[in-house]
Amino acid sequence: MSENRALQRAHILANHILRSPPPLPSNLSLAREVCLQYSPPELSESFGGFDAKEMRRLLDGHNTEDRDWLYGLMMQSNLFNRKERGGKLFVSPDYNQTMEQQREITMRRIWYLLEKGVYRGWLTDSGPEAELRKLALLEVCGIYDHSLSIKLGVHFFLWGNAVKFFGTKRHHEKWLKNTEDYVVKGCFAMTELGHGSNVRGIETVTTYDPRTGEFVINTPCESAQKYWIGGAAKHATHTIVFSQLDINGTNQGVHAFIAQIRDEDGNICPNIRIADCGHKIGLNGVDNGRIWFDNLRIPRENLLNSVADVSSDGQYVSAIENPDQRFGAFLAPLTSGRVTIASCAIYSAKVGLAVAIRYSLSRRAFSAVANGPEVLLLDYPSHQRRLLPLLAKTYAMSFAANDMKMMYVKRTPETNKEIHVVSMGLKAVLTWHNMRTLQECREACGGQGLKTENRVGHLKGDYDVQTTFEGDNNVLMQQVSKALFAEYVSCKKRNKPFKGLGLVHMNSPLPVMPTQLTSSILRCSQFQKNIFSVRERDLLERYTSEVEELQGRGQSREFSFLLSHQLSEDLSKAFAEKAILQAVLNAEAKLPAGSIKDAVGLVRSMYALICMEEDPSFLRYGYLSRDNDGDVRREVSKLCRELRPHALALVTSFGIPDAFLGPIAFNWIEANAWS
Amino acid sequence: MSENRALQRAHILANHILRSPPPLPSNLSLAREVCLQYSPPELSESFGGFDAKEMRRLLDGHNTEDRDWLYGLMMQSNLFNRKERGGKLFVSPDYNQTMEQQREITMRRIWYLLEKGVYRGWLTDSGPEAELRKLALLEVCGIYDHSLSIKLGVHFFLWGNAVKFFGTKRHHEKWLKNTEDYVVKGCFAMTELGHGSNVRGIETVTTYDPRTGEFVINTPCESAQKYWIGGAAKHATHTIVFSQLDINGTNQGVHAFIAQIRDEDGNICPNIRIADCGHKIGLNGVDNGRIWFDNLRIPRENLLNSVADVSSDGQYVSAIENPDQRFGAFLAPLTSGRVTIASCAIYSAKVGLAVAIRYSLSRRAFSAVANGPEVLLLDYPSHQRRLLPLLAKTYAMSFAANDMKMMYVKRTPETNKEIHVVSMGLKAVLTWHNMRTLQECREACGGQGLKTENRVGHLKGDYDVQTTFEGDNNVLMQQVSKALFAEYVSCKKRNKPFKGLGLVHMNSPLPVMPTQLTSSILRCSQFQKNIFSVRERDLLERYTSEVEELQGRGQSREFSFLLSHQLSEDLSKAFAEKAILQAVLNAEAKLPAGSIKDAVGLVRSMYALICMEEDPSFLRYGYLSRDNDGDVRREVSKLCRELRPHALALVTSFGIPDAFLGPIAFNWIEANAWS
Repeated sequence: MSENRALQRAHILANHILRSPPPLPSNLSLAREVCLQYSPPELSESFGGFDAKEMRRLLDGHNTEDRDWLYGLMMQSNLFNRKERGGKLFVSPDYNQTMEQQREITMRRIWYLLEKGVYRGWLTDSGPEAELRKLALLEVCGIYDHSLSIKLGVHFFLWGNAVKFFGTKRHHEKWLKNTEDYVVKGCFAMTELGHGSNVRGIETVTTYDPRTGEFVINTPCESAQKYWIGGAAKHATHTIVFSQLDINGTNQGVHAFIAQIRDEDGNICPNIRIADCGHKIGLNGVDNGRIWFDNLRIPRENLLNSVADVSSDGQYVSAIENPDQRFGAFLAPLTSGRVTIASCAIYSAKVGLAVAIRYSLSRRAFSAVANGPEVLLLDYPSHQRRLLPLLAKTYAMSFAANDMKMMYVKRTPETNKEIHVVSMGLKAVLTWHNMRTLQECREACGGQGLKTENRVGHLKGDYDVQTTFEGDNNVLMQQVSKALFAEYVSCKKRNKPFKGLGLVHMNSPLPVMPTQLTSSILRCSQFQKNIFSVRERDLLERYTSEVEELQGRGQSREFSFLLSHQLSEDLSKAFAEKAILQAVLNAEAKLPAGSIKDAVGLVRSMYALICMEEDPSFLRYGYLSRDNDGDVRREVSKLCRELRPHALALVTSFGIPDAFLGPIAFNWIEANAWS
Repeated sequence: MSENRALQRAHILANHILRSPPPLPSNLSLAREVCLQYSPPELSESFGGFDAKEMRRLLDGHNTEDRDWLYGLMMQSNLFNRKERGGKLFVSPDYNQTMEQQREITMRRIWYLLEKGVYRGWLTDSGPEAELRKLALLEVCGIYDHSLSIKLGVHFFLWGNAVKFFGTKRHHEKWLKNTEDYVVKGCFAMTELGHGSNVRGIETVTTYDPRTGEFVINTPCESAQKYWIGGAAKHATHTIVFSQLDINGTNQGVHAFIAQIRDEDGNICPNIRIADCGHKIGLNGVDNGRIWFDNLRIPRENLLNSVADVSSDGQYVSAIENPDQRFGAFLAPLTSGRVTIASCAIYSAKVGLAVAIRYSLSRRAFSAVANGPEVLLLDYPSHQRRLLPLLAKTYAMSFAANDMKMMYVKRTPETNKEIHVVSMGLKAVLTWHNMRTLQECREACGGQGLKTENRVGHLKGDYDVQTTFEGDNNVLMQQVSKALFAEYVSCKKRNKPFKGLGLVHMNSPLPVMPTQLTSSILRCSQFQKNIFSVRERDLLERYTSEVEELQGRGQSREFSFLLSHQLSEDLSKAFAEKAILQAVLNAEAKLPAGSIKDAVGLVRSMYALICMEEDPSFLRYGYLSRDNDGDVRREVSKLCRELRPHALALVTSFGIPDAFLGPIAFNWIEANAWS
């Protein structure tokens, strides 16, 4: 085998050396033998001087071996649609199938992974270690296919975690192990046709019948039908139902119940109607359905009663008096959803960038000098500028997602608010970043980006849902600004120092910014931190004073927030970008001096400077002068040139096996050969 | 029937009046009867004071009746997948099908439209009137399904126009009528696996055999396989082949030939190999294929010889000596492709906006005051800001597309260069705008934007190809800047006044801009024109001096352009946006005073100001001070409020029949009802 490899390498090298310019446009004899040859970038690109395996451990952050084990499980099974292209193995679903076929094969993949023990302890084990293993394996599933990870996410994270967090001992005993073993298949009926992000407004109604000791669930009108319920259209046997709870004519607000919707043979239960949500622009492996409840009776014990309960004689009891707080308690566990969405988004961006950058290191177009050879795409300054800042952002956000996961698995009541706000901001920023990155990568691959087998274009349709589910991104970003506003007002009012939400910097005097921005200043982490802090602080002060001024002019509090949406957008972005920069700095600080630290430092500077270039707030509010802005732009170009030699090593460090990228990322000539 | 309508209206009005806030979150008894009701926006929205039919004529620009005739033809046939939702008819392809099924149904739709006479004169008639009819009908096909218009576009615009423009009498007589009648089905084999935008680099080779009087076409290596050839995988019988022409060992450059690839029964011809390009992220109704030629012999007469010919004894003759100019002559007719791509992109954006804005006028979420009713999405200032500037841009670009079409159908040798440059710029800017608009509209519809039947999300996958085909957008924009550079240098060198490419304004002294920007200044068309001109002029001067400075420092001309890519991007955008503004002004100038002119004026101001807000060049290079920029932003918000009451009328004026929008644009509660 090693001899084979050596031969292959010699063959490739020979091609590389012999590679000549393509046929010239005119008056030159054609040499047939000088056709295009694929040259693996590994042969010509430096490996950036750092160890890609080590960088990969840093990026993945945890459970590297578990990830590789799961990649291997998928590559070994024909269920994962193995195919050979250009002498290499690829695994990726066949999307040239109807949604019905895609759903069935997704379910079969889930059974296979169950048999292999992938979900062991996903609900029955506790603690940071078990949670991190689960998160890592879910991320790997998402890299193979978003439908697979979403179908697992609905079953384990929505249904399973709802039972775990909202339920008590009786529910845990009855459901958790059975869920882990897929004896029951769960779904999560929160969203309705008429109400999505505004969960409080849902119209499903549940009453209690003390004569039989049952709850009675009803869908009072068409807009109350449960909608988008993943798993409901085909596979789920049970669901969590979110509903208003009406006790003796008093609405106690939204509560969660368990209801069976199908029997073991898959027949829909009496008093339940189910319809399909139909074909979607992606995620067709997930069977989203709609549910109506017609006087469905469920046992009293099926109320998930960690927050409130109803006694057998129909008395409502809750440890939390305030209905707003009760409602909040129901939504808090949804944070886990935002954490996984944000981290899966970054893995999707990594697939896109690995494909587009590898292609740009083997595809040539046009000559830059008359009769010269065609230029590699990534040697075009414009192509570098399209992809390398997005690469740096993906690195930075990868660190931020890791910090968030750690904060989440080690959560305490004290850190809940911080996690809540950070996860909202990062969910929005990371999922938007993923969509933008995939679009740029798809265009950077030209037509090849449109072929489903090359993944980058297909991921767009599959991951698009992330920007609006589990909270519309714009709504989440408004919540972030409101939380910052509340923190600001509360500290100011009580004359207390800032503590939470990363606002400690506001206790110090405003940092003085240099007027001349040299290259070394621009790359200095303290300068970067300072200018991000200045932006956040100024925008928070502007936002607060605008909202308060509007309130002073008689606008309602809520409407004042709505009117200040522009500053709110600017502020929430400043908050999230600063949190991301801080995550890179945290990672960098832990590294020993050396090539990895140097590379992370370069990436961090690119991240900081591209944020400064792209956010008009810096010029608009004067954090940068026009001269400064020119310096920033020039430095970004310089960083593009400096990152260029590391590009291959940086995407290799994503640690995504070749089989999970597209053929266009490798020998695309051989992959397209007639045979 | 009119009694029925009156009853229906009374019913709707009653619902409207009775409509109450949704169930309140706590401690209030539930009133089951106050469920959400759909209220048609037509009842509550003003119609903006202008006549939507008249506005529609203005927007469509030409052939309104022909368009409506074709809409009607499609709505009448079951081939177009008619379905009822919420009591309304909708037509839209069933995308829950394999690509093989989608291709077949697309071909059947083409036969049906052939029978109805839709393509009458598409190749055999000439003159502006015939061309405009063809463009209008193609646009309508694209509104139904992009695959349908692309499959027609390949057959008529690429194959047909190549025969028409590159061929001579013998080709016209043999092929044009047969093409119009679908006796032959044509495709267009230009792109290869190894060369897309860089057509000059293609590797297919054709030689001439004087003994038999035949050309011999060969695919010398895998990278030379023809790729992405629409129609080739399944239906096409003939193709244009682009190939290097090798005459006695001298390469005469790229030429175009006709070759038959399938017989009448659909069997692939000898010496031809064909493979499928496979599943794509959209456009699966188009059978893109790959072609290899193995010593394929074609008659000498199959060379499309309007530019050059080979005599029977093998002598190469061309009226154009310079091979660069010969190559240019071959590519010039591709301009028609860019014209149709740009105008189809705007119709796609119109579908997206009509759906998202209609939905935002019937969907409510959250209350702005405690216990108040939920707020209509479009009454959120942030939602207005997401959609209304895009609406204004779509209007402005619609006028620009019309101007471009008129310039194209009335083209003369003198206007060719102008059309070439304008169509490159508009193709890029309008297709990017479409993708951005669709993404925003999809997110603005929440989860409903992901349902294929609601169209807006699906259009993204279908139209994505536009940003890279017929010239990658980034490459085209670089060409625009290079053309401006050449014009600038040539006028300066010869000390001649500027004439072409809209640069006449450069002959006048730089307009003096006011320092204080009041609302009335910001809305003044002269001010808007001036500041767009100042931007273009300054960027052109900066770009030219940067390129010349780089050349002065010893860089090659081509590499100097590559290094100046940032200014090149800024400049080409300034050029295209100014051309678009000019198109609105042209349209406005022709209108009599009145409500239509007022509405167009509002839209024009929104277009101008949102460009100023979004392009950082204005702040970066000081065309706007920071204070000015604040004024612009505030004025955009004001314009959002002023356009809000016209929103429904503005999208109704797109003139797209309800059946071609998605169910979510109408009574989405009834459309989702159980039944």
